[in-house]
Amino acid sequence: MSVTAARGFRASGATAGLKASGSSDVALVVNDGPDRHAAAVFTSNRVEAAPVTWSRQVVRDRRADAVFLNSGGANACTGVQGFQDTHRTAELVADALRCSATDVIVCSTGLIGEFLPMDRIERGIDLTAAGLGRAGGSDAARAIMTTDSVPKEAVAARDGWVVGGMAKGAGMLAPGLATMLCVITTDAVVSPEALDAALRVSTASTFDRVDSDGCMSTNDTVVVMASGASGIAVSPDELTAAVHEVCASLARQLVADAEGASHDIAVEVRSAATEADAVAVARSVTRSNLFKAAIFGRDPNWGRVLAAVGTTEATFEPSSLDVAINGVQVCRGATIGEDRALVDLEPREVHVVIDLHAGDATATVWTNDLTHDYVHENSAYST
Amino acid sequence: MSVTAARGFRASGATAGLKASGSSDVALVVNDGPDRHAAAVFTSNRVEAAPVTWSRQVVRDRRADAVFLNSGGANACTGVQGFQDTHRTAELVADALRCSATDVIVCSTGLIGEFLPMDRIERGIDLTAAGLGRAGGSDAARAIMTTDSVPKEAVAARDGWVVGGMAKGAGMLAPGLATMLCVITTDAVVSPEALDAALRVSTASTFDRVDSDGCMSTNDTVVVMASGASGIAVSPDELTAAVHEVCASLARQLVADAEGASHDIAVEVRSAATEADAVAVARSVTRSNLFKAAIFGRDPNWGRVLAAVGTTEATFEPSSLDVAINGVQVCRGATIGEDRALVDLEPREVHVVIDLHAGDATATVWTNDLTHDYVHENSAYST
Repeated sequence: MSVTAARGFRASGATAGLKASGSSDVALVVNDGPDRHAAAVFTSNRVEAAPVTWSRQVVRDRRADAVFLNSGGANACTGVQGFQDTHRTAELVADALRCSATDVIVCSTGLIGEFLPMDRIERGIDLTAAGLGRAGGSDAARAIMTTDSVPKEAVAARDGWVVGGMAKGAGMLAPGLATMLCVITTDAVVSPEALDAALRVSTASTFDRVDSDGCMSTNDTVVVMASGASGIAVSPDELTAAVHEVCASLARQLVADAEGASHDIAVEVRSAATEADAVAVARSVTRSNLFKAAIFGRDPNWGRVLAAVGTTEATFEPSSLDVAINGVQVCRGATIGEDRALVDLEPREVHVVIDLHAGDATATVWTNDLTHDYVHENSAYST
Repeated sequence: MSVTAARGFRASGATAGLKASGSSDVALVVNDGPDRHAAAVFTSNRVEAAPVTWSRQVVRDRRADAVFLNSGGANACTGVQGFQDTHRTAELVADALRCSATDVIVCSTGLIGEFLPMDRIERGIDLTAAGLGRAGGSDAARAIMTTDSVPKEAVAARDGWVVGGMAKGAGMLAPGLATMLCVITTDAVVSPEALDAALRVSTASTFDRVDSDGCMSTNDTVVVMASGASGIAVSPDELTAAVHEVCASLARQLVADAEGASHDIAVEVRSAATEADAVAVARSVTRSNLFKAAIFGRDPNWGRVLAAVGTTEATFEPSSLDVAINGVQVCRGATIGEDRALVDLEPREVHVVIDLHAGDATATVWTNDLTHDYVHENSAYST
C-alpha cells in the first residue's frame, strides 16, 4: 500500500527500459486532493542533480500535484541538458495529468554523469499515467529500487487518517552514491506549515541519522504530500508523530537492506552535554573505516571507538569515557574493562553505547559494517 | 643509515619478544651532542596514548637525549598503569644512558587497549642500550615496523651536514589505527626554535597530507633532534628545506607501502581561493569510500569526485568544476567531458586534478584505494 494507503492518492510503477535488468524503473504518485499541500527536504550536497534543482522550486509554494520518479539514471552532473531533460519530464507529466509542470516534483536515481534516454522516459510517463490506481503503491515502491533487495514501505494508521510512505536506497551503502528517495503521503487535514515542520523534525532524527559510509548523494529527496481526503483535522503534534513513525521505519529498513553489509550497527551516545555533541560523537564512530572493518571481523575493538571519539570536539574528559558493545562494558574510564572475549558479534544487530559523562543528552546513529562485499559492489558498479 | 647518517647520533634495534613473529621490536636513538635540541609533533587525537602524554612533557624544554620506541603494543587506553609503564620505561633508559628520564622520549605502536609486558620492555632496553652504534640506523628502522613490508629511511645530504630520518606506518591504511612514528636527526648547528619551526612547517605539508582512511591514531609522533656535531651553522630556511625533503620522502614511502592498497592516489586541487580550501576539498575526496572503491575497480568515476567536492564549504561555483583523471579531462563545467573509457587506471599511481576556478591556491593530498585487502587486514588483525 504505502503511498496509496492514504485516501486521495493514486500511484503506479512501470518499465520504461532504463535498467539493463528489465525491471520496472518509473513510478508516479498523484495527489487528487482536495488539498495539494507538499513539503520536501533535499540533499545538502552543493553538487546537486538536475531533478533536485527543479523540485526545490516546485515545492517553494508548498503545493505539488504529483511526483514522478525514475531509477536507472541519476541525471546528476549533466549540466544544462540535464536540467532541460528534467523540465521536459515535468511538462510531459503535467500534460498527462492536466496540471501545471511547476506542480510536478521529479526524482531520479542511478549512475551520475550520464544523460537520461528521454525517449524511454517519455514512454515511462505514458505508462505510469495510464496505470495510476488506488492500489498502485507497491508497484511504485518496486519501480524505484536500484540495488535494494526489497521494496521499503511503511504505514502509520490512526483513527480515520493515515500516513504512508515508500523509500529506496540500500542503506547509503549502495553503489552510485546511494541516493535515498522517499515519498510520504497523508490524508489528514493539516496546514502546509505543519506538514513542512513535521517533515523536517522527522527526517532530522531518522534519515539524517543513517550514515553508512559518510558519502552524501547528489539526489537525496524526501517528499511529503497531504490530500486532506480523510476530512479529519489533525494537530501538528499528532501529524509529526505519525510522519516520524513512517520515517523511522523506512530509515531502519534502509539500514537492514544495506548492500554488502553483514551487521547493522547502532551507535548510541549517552550523557552528552548537548544533542549536537551526541550526534557528532556517534557520527565520528559510524564513519570510522577501522571500526567498521573490525565489526565485520567480529572484533569488539573498542580502542577504535575511543580513537574516533577522540577526534571530535564534543565536551568530555577523555579519561572518563566508557564503551559497551552488545551489553559488555569493554571499556571503563578509557581503559580496559570487561573481557572483550565476552562480546558476541555473531548477530546482525550490534549496539555500541558510549557514555561521555558530560550531561543528559543522547543520540543514536545507525550504520553498517565495512565488508568485502561493500568494496566489491562499489568498485564494480559502473564498469 | 637514516637516523645515524647525521654525526652525533647512535642507534640500535633489538628483539624484546613483543611480537609473535619474533622480529625485532625495540629501537633506541641517542643524541651524543654537543647540542641536544629536540622538537616533536603529536597526534591531535584527544584520546592519546600514554607515551604521547609523556613525550609532550619531555620536549617542552626543547631538549631530548634519546628516543626509545617499541612496536608490538601501543600502550594506549591503558589508564594510570599505562602511564606508569611509560614513565618506568623512560627511567630505565635514562639509567642505561646516564641521563635524565625527563629527557627520554618514548614512542609505542601496536594494538591499543592492552598493557605492555614490562619484563620484555626492560629486556629490550638492556639490549638496545648495549647495541648502540653509529651504524645502527637501519636496525632501528626495522625494529619499529608493524605491518610495514619495508623499512622507511631517508637522507638529505648537504655540504658538510645532513638530515636523516626513519618512519613506520603502512600508509595509515594499516591495522591497529596505523600509528605513524618518525624520528629525524640532524648534525646541523641550529637553534631549538628553528628546529621546532622546521618540523612544524614540514609535517604540515607532508605527513599531514597523507590520509589513507581518515582515521587518526592515538600514538602518532614525529620527533626531530639536532646534535650540532657537524659544527656547521645552518639558516632556518636551509634547515626547513632539508627537513621537508626527508619528511616528503618518508610520507611518500608510507603511501607506497600502504597495506592492502593497489593504487596510490594523489588528489591535487588547483585554482582554489585559499590553500585551506584546496586542502579541505582534496581531503573530502581522499576520504570518500565510494571514490576509493571505484579506483580499486579501475573505474574513473568522476561523479563520485564531484559529489565529495560538493560536501565542502570551499569557495567555488558548482557548475564550474573540472576533473581530470590521469590526464583525461573527464569532467568539464561539472558535466560530461572527455570519454571516461580513455582513462588508464592500470598503473599504481593515480593523479586526480580538480580545478575549482576560484583563485590561485593549490594543494595535494595522498591516499590509497579501498580494497578487499584493506577490509581483510583491518577486520582480522586483533582476533
